[in-house]
Amino acid sequence: MTNKDMFKVFQGLSTATITTVLLKKGLRNVWMRGPKALHDTEQRYVGRAFTLRFVPVREDLATPAAWASPRSTRAAIEDMPDGCIAVVDAMGVADCGIFGDILCARMAKRGVAALVTDGAVRDVAGVLDTGLPVFCQGVAAPPSVAGLTFVGWQEPIGCGGVAVFPDDLVVADRDGAVVVPQAFVEAVAQEGQEQEALEQWIMDQVAGGAALPGLYPPNAETKARYEASRAKAT
Amino acid sequence: MTNKDMFKVFQGLSTATITTVLLKKGLRNVWMRGPKALHDTEQRYVGRAFTLRFVPVREDLATPAAWASPRSTRAAIEDMPDGCIAVVDAMGVADCGIFGDILCARMAKRGVAALVTDGAVRDVAGVLDTGLPVFCQGVAAPPSVAGLTFVGWQEPIGCGGVAVFPDDLVVADRDGAVVVPQAFVEAVAQEGQEQEALEQWIMDQVAGGAALPGLYPPNAETKARYEASRAKAT
Amino acid sequence: MTNKDMFKVFQGLSTATITTVLLKKGLRNVWMRGPKALHDTEQRYVGRAFTLRFVPVREDLATPAAWASPRSTRAAIEDMPDGCIAVVDAMGVADCGIFGDILCARMAKRGVAALVTDGAVRDVAGVLDTGLPVFCQGVAAPPSVAGLTFVGWQEPIGCGGVAVFPDDLVVADRDGAVVVPQAFVEAVAQEGQEQEALEQWIMDQVAGGAALPGLYPPNAETKARYEASRAKAT
Amino acid sequence: MTNKDMFKVFQGLSTATITTVLLKKGLRNVWMRGPKALHDTEQRYVGRAFTLRFVPVREDLATPAAWASPRSTRAAIEDMPDGCIAVVDAMGVADCGIFGDILCARMAKRGVAALVTDGAVRDVAGVLDTGLPVFCQGVAAPPSVAGLTFVGWQEPIGCGGVAVFPDDLVVADRDGAVVVPQAFVEAVAQEGQEQEALEQWIMDQVAGGAALPGLYPPNAETKARYEASRAKAT
Amino acid sequence: MTNKDMFKVFQGLSTATITTVLLKKGLRNVWMRGPKALHDTEQRYVGRAFTLRFVPVREDLATPAAWASPRSTRAAIEDMPDGCIAVVDAMGVADCGIFGDILCARMAKRGVAALVTDGAVRDVAGVLDTGLPVFCQGVAAPPSVAGLTFVGWQEPIGCGGVAVFPDDLVVADRDGAVVVPQAFVEAVAQEGQEQEALEQWIMDQVAGGAALPGLYPPNAETKARYEASRAKAT
Amino acid sequence: MTNKDMFKVFQGLSTATITTVLLKKGLRNVWMRGPKALHDTEQRYVGRAFTLRFVPVREDLATPAAWASPRSTRAAIEDMPDGCIAVVDAMGVADCGIFGDILCARMAKRGVAALVTDGAVRDVAGVLDTGLPVFCQGVAAPPSVAGLTFVGWQEPIGCGGVAVFPDDLVVADRDGAVVVPQAFVEAVAQEGQEQEALEQWIMDQVAGGAALPGLYPPNAETKARYEASRAKAT
Repeated sequence: MTNKDMFKVFQGLSTATITTVLLKKGLRNVWMRGPKALHDTEQRYVGRAFTLRFVPVREDLATPAAWASPRSTRAAIEDMPDGCIAVVDAMGVADCGIFGDILCARMAKRGVAALVTDGAVRDVAGVLDTGLPVFCQGVAAPPSVAGLTFVGWQEPIGCGGVAVFPDDLVVADRDGAVVVPQAFVEAVAQEGQEQEALEQWIMDQVAGGAALPGLYPPNAETKARYEASRAKAT
Repeated sequence: MTNKDMFKVFQGLSTATITTVLLKKGLRNVWMRGPKALHDTEQRYVGRAFTLRFVPVREDLATPAAWASPRSTRAAIEDMPDGCIAVVDAMGVADCGIFGDILCARMAKRGVAALVTDGAVRDVAGVLDTGLPVFCQGVAAPPSVAGLTFVGWQEPIGCGGVAVFPDDLVVADRDGAVVVPQAFVEAVAQEGQEQEALEQWIMDQVAGGAALPGLYPPNAETKARYEASRAKAT
Repeated sequence: MTNKDMFKVFQGLSTATITTVLLKKGLRNVWMRGPKALHDTEQRYVGRAFTLRFVPVREDLATPAAWASPRSTRAAIEDMPDGCIAVVDAMGVADCGIFGDILCARMAKRGVAALVTDGAVRDVAGVLDTGLPVFCQGVAAPPSVAGLTFVGWQEPIGCGGVAVFPDDLVVADRDGAVVVPQAFVEAVAQEGQEQEALEQWIMDQVAGGAALPGLYPPNAETKARYEASRAKAT
Repeated sequence: MTNKDMFKVFQGLSTATITTVLLKKGLRNVWMRGPKALHDTEQRYVGRAFTLRFVPVREDLATPAAWASPRSTRAAIEDMPDGCIAVVDAMGVADCGIFGDILCARMAKRGVAALVTDGAVRDVAGVLDTGLPVFCQGVAAPPSVAGLTFVGWQEPIGCGGVAVFPDDLVVADRDGAVVVPQAFVEAVAQEGQEQEALEQWIMDQVAGGAALPGLYPPNAETKARYEASRAKAT
Repeated sequence: MTNKDMFKVFQGLSTATITTVLLKKGLRNVWMRGPKALHDTEQRYVGRAFTLRFVPVREDLATPAAWASPRSTRAAIEDMPDGCIAVVDAMGVADCGIFGDILCARMAKRGVAALVTDGAVRDVAGVLDTGLPVFCQGVAAPPSVAGLTFVGWQEPIGCGGVAVFPDDLVVADRDGAVVVPQAFVEAVAQEGQEQEALEQWIMDQVAGGAALPGLYPPNAETKARYEASRAKAT
Repeated sequence: MTNKDMFKVFQGLSTATITTVLLKKGLRNVWMRGPKALHDTEQRYVGRAFTLRFVPVREDLATPAAWASPRSTRAAIEDMPDGCIAVVDAMGVADCGIFGDILCARMAKRGVAALVTDGAVRDVAGVLDTGLPVFCQGVAAPPSVAGLTFVGWQEPIGCGGVAVFPDDLVVADRDGAVVVPQAFVEAVAQEGQEQEALEQWIMDQVAGGAALPGLYPPNAETKARYEASRAKAT
């Protein structure tokens, strides 16, 4: 599968389905605690993780002046490739905003697919106006330097209790944001599609009044009926 | 009062009023911390509690395979009577979803009045489509087995820091979900109606510009005026 | 500046801008953790703080009967001046509601500009109907006396981890609520306006495709361009 | 009973017994969450509450300079009567120390019976050297002004989730610290002594191999045996 | 292996070693968060789990009178077999004590090997005197009924975020308390012993100045040296 | 001052004094929340920070096999210079142990001055035997890979809510652990010594019965007396 095809497949896989498939492979900790869509949306966002990392505030370093440093969030943003998902480790600090309207506007301009963080954003009215899809823990007026010090980008990070490595695949929808480690992307794409098809069929059975035991998860008889229905469909 | 009449009365009592009446009887801990309406609603939901209980995950037991066990959430759902409110003790675990669209669809089909939990649901878009009223702590993509093990139903449980026994009355509205223990149902129904009527009259006085002291709570003079107004109304 | 002019200026300053200006003056802790607009609003609210203080429940004192005491929330409300912002220290207790529809209706009637609390309100449907702008941590059915004891008003308080003194200036918008200590009001008004103008201009540059380094924060060259643009505008 | 006699009685009542007696009178919330003996001790401390109150830090007010203000912790300490228990509302903030060795030394000098707080103390080695009995949540190096602003004394406060009013009786031992509201002091003294005597007798029965049902709580037969044993003892 | 032999083996396995062995088998969640030895001890405690379960307080049910009910903690204690470890689900509630000195004395008398809970105990001086080994989250003066309602025993429970089933093996030492599910007991016993022997040998190498890479975990060369040393020892 | 002299000075400065001096310079956030001496000690530990960083567990990466990777905690330990203080960012995760007895034995062997972490250690009996001074949040049986993935060393980290950069000075005593940023080391050394001398003199005054106002902080008259006493002492 090309990268582009892969992305298209993941557009059709809910984060719920992805976590089920990964759990069957032994990965129980892939859903980030905290990030939640800031805007009402039916959409799903898919991209490679571009990571940013904060440590706690130290008043001599975390100042508005620091924003001009070459190791600033500004420099990190200018390094983001088109289509990436920026994943920001704010250590769950929710009483200052990592970014406001100006930084989000620039990210939108650069083609960033979405911003995911276990922290907060600020100037929420302005951020929503930029059109950048944001998954965060909340909203807070103070600037990042009130509680955080920026230290670097494209390093391994934690976000919402989940390890995120640069270039992991990230998928975000109304259920939140999940990481698909590189090594699992192909397998999840394939098994996820099968899972979605099966669950759609089960949903139809439930709509028709079927009871759950034997249906979900399907027993041998149900599986046979499902396979038969698929054969007919083709 | 018949059961049906009782339910009708409670449709007219806000959870705020119910907690005030129960507090006067010495019950301060009847409102569940966490459950919040997932959908925008002006409605109130009333039903007998049908309880479900989870314990923490143990990886050898909490697997997708477990869903086929006779002691599964599936079996519990098939046991739910029409009109009940399913109350689920998830121990406040909010990083996996106890149920998704398929289970909620089946519950809706079985006539469950509402789902109340101190945990989360998954596949929120699908859950909302089923029309099942859900009061939960949030939304999470991972399946229940990522963090929880299901152990049984119709047992005493804790939900949001409140004890819930099978067949307690549960009422849920925009202020959340409360339990009315069996032994208090009749008394709450009666005193609640009186309280609602009095507060409506007080609200009218406030709208007319009355000051609070002496009015709310009403002193003897206010009570007399209120009684007079009721007498006239009849 | 007159008080009225001052208020008008602050209507145009976002809480995000205010926190940035105060941080430059050494104040990092002015944004209250918890209070969030209960209603959808594009508006900003400005007023002098009128403080109220609760301590934890003691069952012999925190009873519905206490509401008739001269040291009750009712008496405090009757003392609120037109245009103030009521700031209520509920110690972050979110499982009972400090006020319901009747008290909020009276506050609206008295011209209170907004209610800000790190606690919850109850009877949310009724509260929204009163039109009183409310910034709170959430919604809960139980009355205040289920968890709190009211002890006084117009004292120094903590609200959401921030010290609030009577008559401090409070500003609340979609990013939450901030305190501007008396001694800083004039300076924030002036510097805040300059900051807003500069950020608006930077936002335009970003919209035009400008990169961040050198632009935000502005280096000498950018500052010169900005000054030139302002000169032209006049 | 004289005050002195009363104190002597309470020296013999465990905080466990006191909470049981108060619970029977409807007071469930009298034990402070957090305060724990800093030193190894078999002793029990009894005194009238002398309350102090902090609000969160505001950097312009919470400075070492503030320590010289007339509304400082220093002035409060000089106001403490001999034999009181200082109860300090630090809002549970545990990352700065409300007092260090110098202030504790002065309190010891003034005859303060104990210090109880839901916050931390600093310079723990020095504090222990002063001999002042301290019940706190922990130890932290930073001064109070790093996180707190002192605002007053002998006001109603919250400490560890419990309301404390000036002159309430406070008792602290290895199980922590409890408040006995003024109105309940006499009754607790009397019923507490009876409870301690009964439990001592039950403990002897258990030591002799008796089973619990019928013994604890005692049924009619056990009560009769107990009364008989008391009669004999006299 | 007989049950008695098995217990003897586990006396020699640290909880640290047990968790390492179980993790290799896919069980990451077997260590209870909270329980900690109340007394200074070098000992390790091993026994089958006898489970007890609490739900939150409901004031009409959680009263001292409830202690006389046939479904009380007293009845549960009389049901505990010699040598069991009582594991008590207090839902992490740490502001009341599940048991005090009388109940602990009776448990000691009945030969209970240890008490493990994610809650607190009360009357700590008395509890220590009974000699019953206790692993708990802390100490609190109030009786269980101040915050909890007892509902049953020998059911599946959660304790400190871990699922515990009746008759699971429980081991507790200075690192806390772990569960070994029935199906894993034999395997853990065997692999645990091997692991302890290997780690002891590695510890000796480190004492002799060896560097870690290649040593721990051992590479092929180290393994060979270890095997050789074992052969010599026999 | 030579490095060695500097260290000797800091041996005489309590962490309480250091935080007071840094606060006067605008640094309020230098004390790590969580790390606490594992052993009873009167000693103070001083060294340059050697940082290690963990992110959350990902089951495919956090395995015992990972311990053999070149980017493992083992490799980091072999890189630690004599006299350093290892500061480990465990993100506050306290339910697995970052290190056990073997790793601590090796660190002691390499001359590491102390281990400071906001996480836990395991195999506490063995760790204490190694003699390595440890400041941690607690003790837990499970291995690091049960909850954490190690990602690197000598990077900027957060530890207990404080930013720590490689080679910052770290001081730990019974009040916990603090960071002295490089740029402040000289100034803290000097002012800290003056502060300690002054506070010792004040302590003597308090022992002699002096009241606090005017004494601490010292007013002009007290300062004069203090200077006079110092002059005499020389």
